[in-house]
Amino acid sequence: MNPTGNEPVSVALADIQRAAALIAGAVVRTPAVPASRLSHLAGAALTLKLENLQDIGSFKQRGALVKLKSLPPDQAKRGVIAMSAGNHAQGVAYHAQRLGMPATIVMPEGTPFGKIERTSAFGARVILHGDGLDQAGAFAAELAAKEKLAFVHPYDDPLIVAGQGTVALELLADVPELDCIVVPIGGGGIISGIAIAAKALKPGIEIVGVQAALYPAMVQALRGEKPSSGGETIAEGIAVKSPGKLTLEIVRRLVDDILLVDEPALEQAVMLFVEEAKQVVEGAGAAGLAAVLAHRRRFAGRKVALVVCGGNIDSRLLGSVLMRGLVREGRVASLRIDITDRPGTLAQVAGLIGATGGNIIEIHHQRLFRDVPAKRAELDAVVETRNAQHVREIVDRLRAAGFKARVLGTTAAG
Amino acid sequence: MNPTGNEPVSVALADIQRAAALIAGAVVRTPAVPASRLSHLAGAALTLKLENLQDIGSFKQRGALVKLKSLPPDQAKRGVIAMSAGNHAQGVAYHAQRLGMPATIVMPEGTPFGKIERTSAFGARVILHGDGLDQAGAFAAELAAKEKLAFVHPYDDPLIVAGQGTVALELLADVPELDCIVVPIGGGGIISGIAIAAKALKPGIEIVGVQAALYPAMVQALRGEKPSSGGETIAEGIAVKSPGKLTLEIVRRLVDDILLVDEPALEQAVMLFVEEAKQVVEGAGAAGLAAVLAHRRRFAGRKVALVVCGGNIDSRLLGSVLMRGLVREGRVASLRIDITDRPGTLAQVAGLIGATGGNIIEIHHQRLFRDVPAKRAELDAVVETRNAQHVREIVDRLRAAGFKARVLGTTAAG
Repeated sequence: MNPTGNEPVSVALADIQRAAALIAGAVVRTPAVPASRLSHLAGAALTLKLENLQDIGSFKQRGALVKLKSLPPDQAKRGVIAMSAGNHAQGVAYHAQRLGMPATIVMPEGTPFGKIERTSAFGARVILHGDGLDQAGAFAAELAAKEKLAFVHPYDDPLIVAGQGTVALELLADVPELDCIVVPIGGGGIISGIAIAAKALKPGIEIVGVQAALYPAMVQALRGEKPSSGGETIAEGIAVKSPGKLTLEIVRRLVDDILLVDEPALEQAVMLFVEEAKQVVEGAGAAGLAAVLAHRRRFAGRKVALVVCGGNIDSRLLGSVLMRGLVREGRVASLRIDITDRPGTLAQVAGLIGATGGNIIEIHHQRLFRDVPAKRAELDAVVETRNAQHVREIVDRLRAAGFKARVLGTTAAG
Repeated sequence: MNPTGNEPVSVALADIQRAAALIAGAVVRTPAVPASRLSHLAGAALTLKLENLQDIGSFKQRGALVKLKSLPPDQAKRGVIAMSAGNHAQGVAYHAQRLGMPATIVMPEGTPFGKIERTSAFGARVILHGDGLDQAGAFAAELAAKEKLAFVHPYDDPLIVAGQGTVALELLADVPELDCIVVPIGGGGIISGIAIAAKALKPGIEIVGVQAALYPAMVQALRGEKPSSGGETIAEGIAVKSPGKLTLEIVRRLVDDILLVDEPALEQAVMLFVEEAKQVVEGAGAAGLAAVLAHRRRFAGRKVALVVCGGNIDSRLLGSVLMRGLVREGRVASLRIDITDRPGTLAQVAGLIGATGGNIIEIHHQRLFRDVPAKRAELDAVVETRNAQHVREIVDRLRAAGFKARVLGTTAAG
C-alpha cells in the first residue's frame, strides 16, 4: 500500500494494523486527552497522546514488541541484542523478559546508573562498552554476529516503524477530527509510523516533526547538509546524530514540515507540562509543546495532537527544571543586600521583605569574604515571590529604606 | 433509589446519571489507566482514575458544575458564592465564568498568592477574610444572605455529591472488573458519590476511604469520638476538620473501611507517582496509593482503582518532595568530611568520591566557624549516588583513607 507518494514505501497501513493486533493487550492503549490550559496558552485545541503512561514510560515498547514477536522461534530462543542508553533499552528488555527471550543491551560506558539498573532489573544482560553511542553500536553489531543474536534497531527497521505507527491508529480512532499531529524526531521511527498510518487514514492531515535545535540531523539530511549535531540537551531521547535510511525516506515523502526548538523552549515546556497538564514528561516528550508555543501563528485555532512520547526524566533534573522555572517567572528570587554589620539590621531587612508579602525561604549572612568594607556585610536571601513585578517591588522597598539591593541570577536556586 | 441500605438516602444512582448528562462535554471524561509499575510495588492490579487531568486539575469541577447548572435562572443571574482556598474555589470560578454567572470566592487571609491568582483569573471576585476556614466560611454565609447569592458548599450538598459520583460511572464503564475503589476523604463528597453509584451498579464492590492521619475527622465522626484534626499536611485537599452531615450519613451506610496514612507515606506516594506513573499528583491525590502500599496484604492480588483526585501541587513543594525522596533513597547524599587544611586535600577527597562513581553536585569548604581545631577544616559535599549501599561505600572509602566522614540528614538537599 502506498498512501500518498508515487513510489512504494516499505511500510504500509496494513503493516501497522497487523502490528496493532500483535501488541494488543501487552502495551498500554494510552489515552488521548484534551489539554485546556495548554490549549489556552497555545491558542490551538491541543490533544495530548500520553505515551508517558506506557509501562516503561515511553512509546518505544510498541516497536520493540512487534520486532520481538516477529522473530522466528529459533532466533527468539537464541535471543536479541540492542544498543541504547535509554527508552529503547528498557522497551526491548521489558518485553524480552515477558516473552522469555534472552536479551543483551549494550550501553556506552558512563551511562547513568539509574538507566543501567532499570534495564538490568528486567533481566537483561547489560554490557557497558565504548565511549559513546557509535562505539557501543559497533560493538553490539559485532556481538550480534558472533553470538547470532537478532539486532533490534531503535528506528531503522520496518517492524519498528510499524509498531510505533500504532500510536496514530489509536489517536485517530479517539480524535478523528484532528488537523495536525506534532511528533518529536530523533531517528525518525515514530514519526515515520505515524505519518504512514495517519496519511493513509486521513490524507488531509498534516504531520509536523520537531527536532532539538542542537540535533537537527533529520532536517540536515533532508536538505543534504553536512550533519552538525552535538551538545548538551534536555531532550536526550531525540539527541540522535543520524536518522535512519528507511525513516529518512519516509519522512521525505510524508512529513509536511519539521520545526526546531531550542533548549530554553524545551525546558519551559517540561515545566508547563507539570504545572498546566499535571504530566511528567521528558525533554523529548515536551518538544511538541515547545514547537507549538514557539510557532503560535502556524497552529492558531487548529486541532493539534501532541505526541507526548515519554516521561523518563531524572527526578533531580526535573526538580532543577522546576526551580529554574520558578526563578524565571519571578516566583522565587535570590536577592543580595548590603547591610551595616550591626544588631537589628537583619530583622529590619526581613521585616521589609515580609511586609511586601515576600516569604524568605533561605538566608545567608556573609561578612568575611566578600568585597565589602569591614563594617558592612552582605545578606543573600532566597525569597518566594508572586511574580517579576513583586520582585521589583521588594527591591524598591529595600532601596527606599537605604539598602543597596539587587537580584542575583538563577544560580542560587538552581 | 436505595442501593444497599434500608433507609432512603438523599442521593441515588439516577441523580448521578442525571448529573453525568448535565456535565457531559463540559468536564473532561478522564481516562482510567493501568499502572504496571505501581501495581508491581503494591502487589495488586492498580488502575488510576486520573482526575488530575481535569481542566482545573481536580474532580471538584464535576460537582460545582452540576450545582451551577441546577440553579433557577434568576438565582444564576444574581450569582454564587463559595468558600475555599483550593480546588473547590477554582471549580466554581471556572464554570461560573463559562456559564456567565457572577461568582464570589471567600478565602482565608494568608491564602498563598498563586491560589488567589488562579481563582481571580477566572473572573471571580475574591474576598480575603478571616483567620482560617471557619471564619471565612461564616463570612461567606453572611455575605450569601446579604447579597442573595447561592452558597455552593464544597461537599455537603446532594447536587455536589451527585456530581462527584460521576467519577464512578466512568470508572466502572471503563474497568467493570474492579474489586475495590480507594477514594481520599476530606469532607466526604467524592467518596459519597462514588459509593452510591458503584454499589448500585456493582453491589459486591468494596469502597475504601483514605484520610490523612492528621485529619481523621470522618473516622472520628463515625466512631462518635471527639474531633482532633490539625497540623501541617502535604494533603491539604483532604485536611478537613469536620465531615458533612449528608456525607457522614452516606459514608456510614456505604463505605466499607477507612484507612489512615501518615505524612511520610503521603510524601513518598507523591514521589512514586512522579517516578513510576509519570503523574503530577497533589498530596490528597496520592493518598490512595499511600494506603495501598501501607496495607499491602489487604489489597494483595485484587483489582483496585485509585481515584487520583487532583494534581494541584505547588512546584516548589513538588521539587522539595523529589529532592527529599532522592535523599531518602540514598540517590543524593550530603557528606561531612573533616580534612586537614592544606593544599591538595580537597582534590584527594574529590578523587576518592569520584573513584566510587559518586558525582559531586555541590561542595562547601568551611574552616572558620565550625567546632574543629585551627589546622583542620570541614568539607560538606552533596553527592549524587546510586543507593544507600553506595553511600556507605563512599564513607568507608573516605575513612579507609584516614578521613573522618559522616552522612548528614536530609536538610542539605531539602
